[in-house]
Amino acid sequence: MGFDFFKPIEEELKIVEKSLGENINTDIRILDEAAGHLISAGGKRLRPAFALLSAKVFRDDLEYILPMATALELVHMATLVHDDVIDNSEMRRGTFTVKSGWGNRISIYAGNYIFARALALAASYGRSDILNILADASMKICEGEIVQLLSAYDVTKGLKNYLRRIERKTALLIAVSCELGAALCNVHARQIEALRLYGHYLGMAFQITDDILDLVADEKVLGKPTGSDIRQGVITLPVLFALKHSPRKDELRKLLSSPELCSRYVDYIIDKVLDAGGVDYAYEVSTRFARKAKKQLSYLPDVAVKQNLHDIADFIIKRDY
Amino acid sequence: MGFDFFKPIEEELKIVEKSLGENINTDIRILDEAAGHLISAGGKRLRPAFALLSAKVFRDDLEYILPMATALELVHMATLVHDDVIDNSEMRRGTFTVKSGWGNRISIYAGNYIFARALALAASYGRSDILNILADASMKICEGEIVQLLSAYDVTKGLKNYLRRIERKTALLIAVSCELGAALCNVHARQIEALRLYGHYLGMAFQITDDILDLVADEKVLGKPTGSDIRQGVITLPVLFALKHSPRKDELRKLLSSPELCSRYVDYIIDKVLDAGGVDYAYEVSTRFARKAKKQLSYLPDVAVKQNLHDIADFIIKRDY
Repeated sequence: MGFDFFKPIEEELKIVEKSLGENINTDIRILDEAAGHLISAGGKRLRPAFALLSAKVFRDDLEYILPMATALELVHMATLVHDDVIDNSEMRRGTFTVKSGWGNRISIYAGNYIFARALALAASYGRSDILNILADASMKICEGEIVQLLSAYDVTKGLKNYLRRIERKTALLIAVSCELGAALCNVHARQIEALRLYGHYLGMAFQITDDILDLVADEKVLGKPTGSDIRQGVITLPVLFALKHSPRKDELRKLLSSPELCSRYVDYIIDKVLDAGGVDYAYEVSTRFARKAKKQLSYLPDVAVKQNLHDIADFIIKRDY
Repeated sequence: MGFDFFKPIEEELKIVEKSLGENINTDIRILDEAAGHLISAGGKRLRPAFALLSAKVFRDDLEYILPMATALELVHMATLVHDDVIDNSEMRRGTFTVKSGWGNRISIYAGNYIFARALALAASYGRSDILNILADASMKICEGEIVQLLSAYDVTKGLKNYLRRIERKTALLIAVSCELGAALCNVHARQIEALRLYGHYLGMAFQITDDILDLVADEKVLGKPTGSDIRQGVITLPVLFALKHSPRKDELRKLLSSPELCSRYVDYIIDKVLDAGGVDYAYEVSTRFARKAKKQLSYLPDVAVKQNLHDIADFIIKRDY
């Protein structure tokens, strides 16, 4: 995804970047190390960007929004640090990489630290309505992670389960970023709601796109092996479609239920998902969500930054990545 | 520790107990399971008790304090759930117990969920000063956990490191419980500070007592093997004293630096620590902290519940457990 959409807030994003580093910088070296790679690796900082763009609809000076923008990325980073935790089951499946003996615990405490730090930043606004939104979202994100674990390799789960999973995993924090960016500007409830829904629909479209790319993109572009989701038992929209409509659905069902078969036949599974039209279908659904996102923009005042929000949705629709 | 001290707040503690169950009860069964044993196992609910007793100094009706009392125990429970995570290094040392394949990740997400839940409860007061105290304490508790990990089997660390560790691990959340109980009654800053310091000193005394009991108490009383700290490389006050004053300090230094030797010679190490007077010294330090706690009570109005706070400190001084 390009950064052109973020032009109106590029100065603010630089300040957020610096602030992220400062917030993770403690006198405990190993804590910095556990989280520092997330800073140096950069990233799109989507959540701060959406908070800032949303606020920019209503005000020009975004200084007041910066702590919240930082807090939102810290919440995201806390989940990434926890994702670093190596599970017994993963070790058993042989993907165990060498880490320091205390690796797991350090990752847990570092993630907790970053999360607490995020909430302290958000608390500095002195607004309990805003903190409630963030705390509530954090709970739901945890629920989503658990539902995803429990649904692994489960081919009986359907579309509703998938949509709930990606809503919690991705869409929710983007929705909250847009919502809080607007809420801090104290604008009309309908406008806040419009931005929340914009973020929600866009987040859904993003995650479906991500799920597609996991099947079709080059490993070099992805930065991880193609078919990672299949290997981990995460059943995504294209696969769900194939499980219902492929002439080989019985075979797919058998393969996708088994961690061993998933790993061994990942390329074959991807082929069958593509043959069944699973990816085309998922593109369609993602486009539908992006269109819904665009529609919400009609509730907002006509300011220049609205075009950027519009273009981000179009970027999904045009598959411009 | 007896429950007689908690007589004036026993009705409130029952409500907190019920509320803990409700807060952990979700529609995700495995999340309930991951945390449910903490509810059914009961526990002393020290943190809610201290928040309630502290508030009781200033007001009779404690209904307003109940959500905070619940939140404080939830913060504590979140750390306990994360302590359930099995580390690679522990698996290597052979203490690995059979858990479900997803055990680690479920524990992490469940802990995060409970922590977010606690902060949402605390946010419901709409007071950012109070949320800041809780978020700040949570960060420091994480730092303390990391420092404890990093200090494991490190016989070069001294008293300052030990005191900092137990301050973060135990004293801080008890101090904050007392502080917030008072702060929610909007009393004079000096009174809030007196209760915070009371909680701090008492928490220090508690942890030192715990560290002593780990060496001298019966396994049945402890609910875990005697010498657990030594086995885990956690160097406590009695051991620190022996490392400095035992005629066998060179030998102790060698044994305590090695995970293998710690496990093999745990009984021998305990004997040498007792011989050196390490436990007597630690009792003395713990008594000194409990006396400091009592002194803070002079800043508080003369109400009946003050005697309970007084008796809790005396219970430590008289080794009445």
